[in-house]
Amino acid sequence: MAVSTNLDVLAQRYPNGVFAAACPSRVLLDHVTSKWGVLVLVSLTEGSLRWSELRRRAEGISEKMLAQTLKTLERDGLVHRDAQPVIPPRVDYSLTPLGVELADLMMPLFVWVVEHADELVGAPD
Amino acid sequence: MAVSTNLDVLAQRYPNGVFAAACPSRVLLDHVTSKWGVLVLVSLTEGSLRWSELRRRAEGISEKMLAQTLKTLERDGLVHRDAQPVIPPRVDYSLTPLGVELADLMMPLFVWVVEHADELVGAPD
Repeated sequence: MAVSTNLDVLAQRYPNGVFAAACPSRVLLDHVTSKWGVLVLVSLTEGSLRWSELRRRAEGISEKMLAQTLKTLERDGLVHRDAQPVIPPRVDYSLTPLGVELADLMMPLFVWVVEHADELVGAPD
Repeated sequence: MAVSTNLDVLAQRYPNGVFAAACPSRVLLDHVTSKWGVLVLVSLTEGSLRWSELRRRAEGISEKMLAQTLKTLERDGLVHRDAQPVIPPRVDYSLTPLGVELADLMMPLFVWVVEHADELVGAPD
């Protein structure tokens, strides 16, 4: 898909505004830009990961927040959950093709943030 | 700056991990991926905006959250605040050169989200 970077195009397509509170894009934007949503999506660009690997990757995330984040991203069709019928149970998480598309767009932003963090970030709140 | 999209490169540069809870990149990532941070940065790609224009643009934002979001982005060096010595007071907000760099990386992601929102978004939480 050719990605337009022109807000005018979006404005024409969505006359009520892409920022309108009731617009579904706001819901999806909240999901994928949530503190943990970004870290989970970017972590999964490395390939399929198990629950415990994801927890280590997104240091500081609680069990509850990881479960909630994964459930939301799975419902959005961005993350695939693969539960293996083995003992002990094994569950792997991976990006769906759409998740890969999104993560590919997210990576340059993420890398930029990492590169500029020391230079930019203000005093902690 | 050439943007690497390879996590391995980042891992080599930041042996303690780019996801480490104490890493400044996590603070900056929180700022720029906050619900309102994204909407304010993307709104300002259209050019300089006044307070009231920003409030209309990011529909649903409270006075308090807009003030807090702008203050954080200003402290991070991403947004420039220009208070004109006129009566009544006039304050314009615009992206700094670094803010433009970041917003340029953010736009394709934002556009993708808007384009895929209807198709993807799960049932509301």
